Amino acid sequence: MGAAAAADAPVVAQGINGSLTLAVAGAGAAIGIGMIGGKAVEAVGRNPGAFGNILTLGIIGMALAEAVAIYALIIAFGGR
Amino acid sequence: MGAAAAADAPVVAQGINGSLTLAVAGAGAAIGIGMIGGKAVEAVGRNPGAFGNILTLGIIGMALAEAVAIYALIIAFGGR
Amino acid sequence: MGAAAAADAPVVAQGINGSLTLAVAGAGAAIGIGMIGGKAVEAVGRNPGAFGNILTLGIIGMALAEAVAIYALIIAFGGR
Repeated sequence: MGAAAAADAPVVAQGINGSLTLAVAGAGAAIGIGMIGGKAVEAVGRNPGAFGNILTLGIIGMALAEAVAIYALIIAFGGR
Repeated sequence: MGAAAAADAPVVAQGINGSLTLAVAGAGAAIGIGMIGGKAVEAVGRNPGAFGNILTLGIIGMALAEAVAIYALIIAFGGR
Repeated sequence: MGAAAAADAPVVAQGINGSLTLAVAGAGAAIGIGMIGGKAVEAVGRNPGAFGNILTLGIIGMALAEAVAIYALIIAFGGR
């Protein structure tokens, strides 16, 4: 290989990294959000009077899991 | 390979490391948050009177799991 | 390979180890925190009078799981 190939290699690897990060972390984040959202609608169906409280707690939990996906998106955009 | 390839190699590996860390640890963190949030909204639906206590305990637990994702984000930005 | 490539190789390997450690150990730690937190909020919903005891025991358990993530973070920063 020449010097050009060596200089290009890091750019290739960076792209692989960022998208792999969002792939794996995003899948986990979506599964976590799914656990909370699934249980939340089940709980509202069981006890509609608790809708306000379930909405509050569910949104806090889903926002925390969504944050992980946003961290991965930042890394994917940064190309690290 | 020449000296240029050797000098670029660590940069490639650093990027792979940091983003792989956020990928796997972030996925685990989000699944952990999902477990706590899912059970928390289920518990509020079952017993709305305990909302305050469940919110306290749920946020402590989700914050501890979120902290793991933030550790991984620090490593991902640091490029280690 | 020349002397330059040989000298750079250990640096690459160190970075891979530390961040892989935080990736896998962090994912496991966060899932462990999720198991404890999930069951703890479920228990508070079932028996709100036991909140104080559940909080004490839950925080001890989650702190022990969090400690594993912190051990891995130390190793990831140290680059071992």
